[in-house]
Amino acid sequence: MRKATARRRTAILTRRKSCTLAEIVRRFGGELIGKGGVRINQVAALESAQAGHITFLSQPQYLPQLAGTRASAVIVAPETRNATRLPRIVSDNPHAYFAKVSGFFNPPPPIKGGVHRSAVVDRTARIPASASVGPCAVVGKNVRIGPRAAIGPGCSIGDGVTIGEETRLHANVTVYHDCRIGARCLVHSGAVIGADGFGLASEKGVWKKIPQIGRVMIGNDVEIGANTTIDRGALDDTTIEDGVKLDNQIQIGHNVRIGAHTAIAACVGIAGSTKIGEHCAIGGAAMISGHITIADHVTVSGGTVIMKSLHQPGIYTGVFPAALHQNWLKNASHLRRLDELADKIRDLEHRLLAPERGQS
Amino acid sequence: MRKATARRRTAILTRRKSCTLAEIVRRFGGELIGKGGVRINQVAALESAQAGHITFLSQPQYLPQLAGTRASAVIVAPETRNATRLPRIVSDNPHAYFAKVSGFFNPPPPIKGGVHRSAVVDRTARIPASASVGPCAVVGKNVRIGPRAAIGPGCSIGDGVTIGEETRLHANVTVYHDCRIGARCLVHSGAVIGADGFGLASEKGVWKKIPQIGRVMIGNDVEIGANTTIDRGALDDTTIEDGVKLDNQIQIGHNVRIGAHTAIAACVGIAGSTKIGEHCAIGGAAMISGHITIADHVTVSGGTVIMKSLHQPGIYTGVFPAALHQNWLKNASHLRRLDELADKIRDLEHRLLAPERGQS
Amino acid sequence: MRKATARRRTAILTRRKSCTLAEIVRRFGGELIGKGGVRINQVAALESAQAGHITFLSQPQYLPQLAGTRASAVIVAPETRNATRLPRIVSDNPHAYFAKVSGFFNPPPPIKGGVHRSAVVDRTARIPASASVGPCAVVGKNVRIGPRAAIGPGCSIGDGVTIGEETRLHANVTVYHDCRIGARCLVHSGAVIGADGFGLASEKGVWKKIPQIGRVMIGNDVEIGANTTIDRGALDDTTIEDGVKLDNQIQIGHNVRIGAHTAIAACVGIAGSTKIGEHCAIGGAAMISGHITIADHVTVSGGTVIMKSLHQPGIYTGVFPAALHQNWLKNASHLRRLDELADKIRDLEHRLLAPERGQS
Repeated sequence: MRKATARRRTAILTRRKSCTLAEIVRRFGGELIGKGGVRINQVAALESAQAGHITFLSQPQYLPQLAGTRASAVIVAPETRNATRLPRIVSDNPHAYFAKVSGFFNPPPPIKGGVHRSAVVDRTARIPASASVGPCAVVGKNVRIGPRAAIGPGCSIGDGVTIGEETRLHANVTVYHDCRIGARCLVHSGAVIGADGFGLASEKGVWKKIPQIGRVMIGNDVEIGANTTIDRGALDDTTIEDGVKLDNQIQIGHNVRIGAHTAIAACVGIAGSTKIGEHCAIGGAAMISGHITIADHVTVSGGTVIMKSLHQPGIYTGVFPAALHQNWLKNASHLRRLDELADKIRDLEHRLLAPERGQS
Repeated sequence: MRKATARRRTAILTRRKSCTLAEIVRRFGGELIGKGGVRINQVAALESAQAGHITFLSQPQYLPQLAGTRASAVIVAPETRNATRLPRIVSDNPHAYFAKVSGFFNPPPPIKGGVHRSAVVDRTARIPASASVGPCAVVGKNVRIGPRAAIGPGCSIGDGVTIGEETRLHANVTVYHDCRIGARCLVHSGAVIGADGFGLASEKGVWKKIPQIGRVMIGNDVEIGANTTIDRGALDDTTIEDGVKLDNQIQIGHNVRIGAHTAIAACVGIAGSTKIGEHCAIGGAAMISGHITIADHVTVSGGTVIMKSLHQPGIYTGVFPAALHQNWLKNASHLRRLDELADKIRDLEHRLLAPERGQS
Repeated sequence: MRKATARRRTAILTRRKSCTLAEIVRRFGGELIGKGGVRINQVAALESAQAGHITFLSQPQYLPQLAGTRASAVIVAPETRNATRLPRIVSDNPHAYFAKVSGFFNPPPPIKGGVHRSAVVDRTARIPASASVGPCAVVGKNVRIGPRAAIGPGCSIGDGVTIGEETRLHANVTVYHDCRIGARCLVHSGAVIGADGFGLASEKGVWKKIPQIGRVMIGNDVEIGANTTIDRGALDDTTIEDGVKLDNQIQIGHNVRIGAHTAIAACVGIAGSTKIGEHCAIGGAAMISGHITIADHVTVSGGTVIMKSLHQPGIYTGVFPAALHQNWLKNASHLRRLDELADKIRDLEHRLLAPERGQS
């Protein structure tokens, strides 16, 4: 039995797509150097590549690994065009080129349209024959699913949700009522889209809930990582524009707007009503306060807390440097008294400079 | 077909609750100024409000938006009673007043009692006819669900769990065995209540698991955000008191106690055995160490790490200020050598003041 | 009815395992002091213990609680052997001893083999009769489940996944295709194993997805907390070695390797391609940058950001000390200008020391 399975798997692998280096260049451009006839069937990292693989060099620091690679071909930048004798493709952007080649060899699995018999789909939901709804998924009233979209096992899709064409939800994603997800999005497991924002009013020490009646509106080509949460708006909507890429365990508060083509690394929190510009890059575990505005093309370093609006592009950082614990103890204790230290410096300056002034 | 759906939806919308401003004042109090007969059918933000909407002004900084609002009425504070000519309600607490009015126009959807045919409910579970169990939910042995409670699609309710009346669990919530959730709570998708605390003992470099035999005990009127996790106690229980409000992606370790009416923003972590007082406010992404005590009425700013007990009310902050990266690099490098700088200052003081002493 | 249930439950409780203190010593070693015949049926904390319970004292700071305990017996260290007159066991490692005794009284619930009728299991999956698959779980193609393993309700197990013997997945865990989990692991609810890493290439301001074709490989005796996410490798695999313990809401990026017997507290983020050594301890909410290496036996304090490789064992810390907000405001404002302060100190030194040099 085992052997049979192994043989069948090998058969699947050998049926895998394969093409020549020259065909890759014809398809994706770039300059071919060396034997164009070499056959390629997969991408790989410099160090683990084997015969039949194509790899890439994006940064000169990996030149030593390039020297030892067993790949059959490599994608390089113009400045490293002569760094190897392997058959190679020269591209202005080896990383993006590699992404395309990898996408060619590793397309997402095809979607077989159809609703699994164990799924629970309201009769008012509109699901085209080309879309799939996985086992134990639940689809509410008036939901509209686009062509070739896929709802994974165990997903819960609330009433009135719209999901665009070719969008894929992995297993156990939850989308609350009336939210919209655009086309060609990818949503990973455990993501929760459209839960209530944290809207409370205090009255005599007791918190009153403010109903969250906005929605979440997600554009096209957005990726949302595992266990990321995007809250619905309090009154207006929370908006994620086209091409935004969100990593895992990100929290996006109500009424936030994320501008197009911004990428946000894991564990970032963005508090309510903050507007983030387009083409921003937010590092992992950065925390961004509510009710602020961040300009286009801002980069925030990982672990940085942003408490005020950033109106200019640039790289912003605020991280306490880690040190051996005993050194940190000393530095932190001085930091606690930094105001005193500054006073002392002022006092010293005064004492030292006052007599000079007196003498003049 | 589309038009028919749109027409039906509009019909639903127009059947929405509507009342006069005077009726709102009769129901919720406050002082009516202007035409009491104006009809209101929804709440809205200052900027996006339309005819038929009531909005509110809680802070003077939004006065410019008040000037341009198209709302039919507005809730204002005594000090801004004359800031508009719109029909208005004067309230000492416009935010809380607005919360109540919004709750009136946007009540939670009614619960239709009944267990969905796809749910898997142990025959020993007690579920009143007024409670609902959604599709693909799983309910264990000896579970007790209160009247008018709702268990969402895909939820997993472990053996021996008790859930109080009118409590709602959204889709894909997990509650481990023997935990208790009080009445009128709201639990958002992906929340996990009662997973094992992180209890380990080290023996010769290998970690031994300590069984986590406590429970999670949650009071009444508690809200728990999406993907928040609350661990069961190691030996005794983890306790969340009445009226606590927890945002998304909060982690609460074993044996933590959160005092009544404390609100905690998203991404906060609270390590094991810490006790947090009543009426506290913990800002987003704050991190609170284990085995400490925080007094009542403490506010912790977002992004702050609390490593010691806080015995006095007040606002506590500890955030490295963000700056342009090149400035941060300089400041951080000095911070690493702050002990040296302090030594230099002491030395300078000594040099400068010693002669004076010598001269006296 | 209620009374009948209560009586039945009590019956279950009284049928609970019970043994003498001497039997515990025979089983787990240690030195017995006092009456070995005292019957023990459960473990408890010092303060909440009752008759029939055994408790432990690991740190001298809890001596006051020891004085008041109502436990029937206690586990102590050699240096506190005479700190109580209760029947006791002296052990070099009371905490680990307690863990074993607790494990004896509180074994994990037995697994009843069998696939629930509501589970959806592909016919190519291999599930031994001793393993269990819970209600509404979904198991894909060519999955292999080990003997006595348990897949909880609502779990989603992707195609080609392997799960080792006696491994337990609580409810609503998601494992993506082709990942492997070893033997005797414990995975808590909401964990997501094998979602795509955050692999993107930028081309003309638009992000291109890089297919994530590696897997997640998890060793034996690993515990994974609730809502923790472990991304699959981009090209090679993400690896969690034997005996690693991960708390809740941890994010592990693609191609990370965590060395054996490392423990990581909640809310930690580890960015892609970082290698963490064996026997490390990472405190809660620590954030570790990508592409770095951390040596064996490193301890990182909670809330610390590690941006560079750590090649030496030791305790590393970097936390901005919390203070009352008004004090923080002052210190933070000086910190922003620390470079200026350092300049002033240099200037003062120069002024003060230059004349001396001049005079010499």
